[in-house]
Amino acid sequence: MKVVKFGGSSLASGEQLKKVLQIVVSDSSRKVVVVSAPGKRYSDDIKVTDMLIECAEKHLENEDAKVIFQAIIDRYESIVKELSIPSDIIQTITNDLKELLESDKSKPESYLDAVKASGEDNNAKLIAAYFQHSGVDAQYVNPKDAGLLVSDEPGNAQVLPESYENLYKLRDRKGIIIFPGFFGYSKSGEVLTFSRSGSDITGSILANGIKADLYENFTDVDAVYSVNPTIVQNPKEIVELTYREMRELSYAGFSVFHDEALIPAFRAGIPVNVKNTNNPSAPGTKIVNERANSNGPVIGIASDKGFCSIYISKYLMNREIGFGRKLLQILEDYGLTYEHVPSGIDDVTVILRQKQMSKKVEKQITERIMTELQADEVIIEHDLVLIMVVGEGMRHNVGTTARASKALADAGVNIEMINQGSSEVSMMFGVKEPQEKRAVQALYNEFFVAVPV
Amino acid sequence: MKVVKFGGSSLASGEQLKKVLQIVVSDSSRKVVVVSAPGKRYSDDIKVTDMLIECAEKHLENEDAKVIFQAIIDRYESIVKELSIPSDIIQTITNDLKELLESDKSKPESYLDAVKASGEDNNAKLIAAYFQHSGVDAQYVNPKDAGLLVSDEPGNAQVLPESYENLYKLRDRKGIIIFPGFFGYSKSGEVLTFSRSGSDITGSILANGIKADLYENFTDVDAVYSVNPTIVQNPKEIVELTYREMRELSYAGFSVFHDEALIPAFRAGIPVNVKNTNNPSAPGTKIVNERANSNGPVIGIASDKGFCSIYISKYLMNREIGFGRKLLQILEDYGLTYEHVPSGIDDVTVILRQKQMSKKVEKQITERIMTELQADEVIIEHDLVLIMVVGEGMRHNVGTTARASKALADAGVNIEMINQGSSEVSMMFGVKEPQEKRAVQALYNEFFVAVPV
Repeated sequence: MKVVKFGGSSLASGEQLKKVLQIVVSDSSRKVVVVSAPGKRYSDDIKVTDMLIECAEKHLENEDAKVIFQAIIDRYESIVKELSIPSDIIQTITNDLKELLESDKSKPESYLDAVKASGEDNNAKLIAAYFQHSGVDAQYVNPKDAGLLVSDEPGNAQVLPESYENLYKLRDRKGIIIFPGFFGYSKSGEVLTFSRSGSDITGSILANGIKADLYENFTDVDAVYSVNPTIVQNPKEIVELTYREMRELSYAGFSVFHDEALIPAFRAGIPVNVKNTNNPSAPGTKIVNERANSNGPVIGIASDKGFCSIYISKYLMNREIGFGRKLLQILEDYGLTYEHVPSGIDDVTVILRQKQMSKKVEKQITERIMTELQADEVIIEHDLVLIMVVGEGMRHNVGTTARASKALADAGVNIEMINQGSSEVSMMFGVKEPQEKRAVQALYNEFFVAVPV
Repeated sequence: MKVVKFGGSSLASGEQLKKVLQIVVSDSSRKVVVVSAPGKRYSDDIKVTDMLIECAEKHLENEDAKVIFQAIIDRYESIVKELSIPSDIIQTITNDLKELLESDKSKPESYLDAVKASGEDNNAKLIAAYFQHSGVDAQYVNPKDAGLLVSDEPGNAQVLPESYENLYKLRDRKGIIIFPGFFGYSKSGEVLTFSRSGSDITGSILANGIKADLYENFTDVDAVYSVNPTIVQNPKEIVELTYREMRELSYAGFSVFHDEALIPAFRAGIPVNVKNTNNPSAPGTKIVNERANSNGPVIGIASDKGFCSIYISKYLMNREIGFGRKLLQILEDYGLTYEHVPSGIDDVTVILRQKQMSKKVEKQITERIMTELQADEVIIEHDLVLIMVVGEGMRHNVGTTARASKALADAGVNIEMINQGSSEVSMMFGVKEPQEKRAVQALYNEFFVAVPV
């Protein structure tokens, strides 16, 4: 039994939906189909979800939303026309969206969540109608009926453990299940959306719930690339990588999956296969628990912008019990999460995502560190890039650090920070933002192009 | 005006004292002479300080201490005889020590401190007598008379700020001042010793106090070596290094100075010259605030044994505000100081000196981390060695990390941890203890022997 998830671009038009239908029916084990809202048909097209957000915000601000509302309905309608499905589904969608938009606005966040979620929900209804119209035994299943229960955090809902038992029952349903991604229901019956890549999360949860043999995730690329294609041209495709490698890569902005999306599938030990809706015969990339370590120590390189560093120096810091703890307490008081804390003898640096800090917060933190911890010096630097070099093969490969740092040195990249020693399957380099591309290219050349030393 | 400090081996015998006299009188700017207790004359000789400790402990336990007491007096007496100084100084020393040993034992730590300190104190009296006997205008000055005030921490006294003003008055005293190292007085008049290398600390404090132009520190080596001579044969001597380099090297067990000893001199910007009593014409090693960066990026390599690592992994750790702080709080509850905290995404490792932890404490900490922080895994590993590669030249030398890690890789050394990013003038490698020598040798060859890449 397989769970199959399709992303927005795979569902953007009738033409795409025909491909989806073919893919689903071509393998009878494809039982559960998780769908996103219609995505972009061309690069500067607008996703339905984004239109829904705009529409909801206009309603919240009591502005006129007729135009954007109609634009949303038109998107669905164009698909329906293209597939010549009976148009009553459009009526259903229209009524549903109208009702939602007129619903209680006393909790704007919840209101926004409900409207956003309708993109997936109504698309699932549409797709179920299309499947049925094409003579396929398929049914739309609502997350509430299926018992997909989540925590009460709008925009960042977490699945509740009892959901898995409820979802297991989906196995007994007849035919193909068309399931909307991106949201679940609180125990009190409210719609709540997951964080970004929410449909991936839904697919992952369902794969766990029905104890699938495989979770197929259809996107618009043939495979996961070993490095960001916008930085390195035509990079090597990854045939197989482990969950851990995936997570370490995702952490540094690796775009395929939001780093938490696969955890439910991972916990159940279900392999994931990333495939291309537009080229389903391509093997794609498999994400597994264990892999045979063939191709070299490194499987992928990822980088993420927007980090800053807080450097603190104080004489005899390393003799002072509690210094680090007090420092982290100050950050915690501002709700800041930090990434890494490289330390010298009398100095320590905290690396964190700079979008968390306003100039005001930076000033306050600096003052508190100076006064409360009596630091000699506090320096905040911005626009640091973290580069992750990831691979199970690094576990006991002695030369990897040398190769990586030599490649960076030869490219004239100044390494601001190295973080190695905790994770066995990755090493991290901090560089200044202007050097990101050069650094990633150099590492790629070393591990994927050059003949291994 | 110079402060000159002589270590124990420079004062172990009459023959050594003759050299000391020659050194002092050969430069009229050598105003203050700080002396240790008589050290070892030959490798398995016993230092007077160690004999004093044994003697004090016997007294504390009401055991017979006649033999050890006589052995101490004999050490002084042999020097006096060798130099044919009038023997009344021996009577002075004997009475002083007797009095000390019979003094109040209600506070054993303070008692021990007072007896220990007598080694330097009486040696200073002896040396003053010798200088006078040789027609040199010299006088013994007691730290109490000089106003060297310290905090009330036996064995780890810290100088009090007001001391510096008091000590400045020493400039006005006639002739050469013979000043005992290793101890000061609390405001209540009690003797308190500094931590190890206490005489170096005294010299450093005096250099600051009298605003000396130079602090000469005489030992038994021609210079500070770039690496531990017991690991690398005939290593390169360091002509000049900065305070910061010195401190970073000292941190990793670099033997010349206790890493806090030089701070008072450093704060006053006074250069230190490490010289050899047995070869005073050798230029020695200068420790300065700034140095011209001539010879390559690295000035020294140091390594220190006896570290352990606590590895903690937990899913989504990096999303959990306060995790690191709570972890450090647990260590703090056991009074543990940690050195470094390399971190991955879902894991963090704490590096600390293992002598701090008993098996029992390790067990308790592991349990608390598992239960209170709900970690997935906690692993404690022992016998890690930290290797510091230090040099001001590393500040913006792009290739240093690459050279260091390549040298280690080529030598087959597995790097357990790299810590770089906070200190600009050092990088740290963690390796397993059995690989220490090979690692240090490889780094030395790369930066001091091999032709730079």
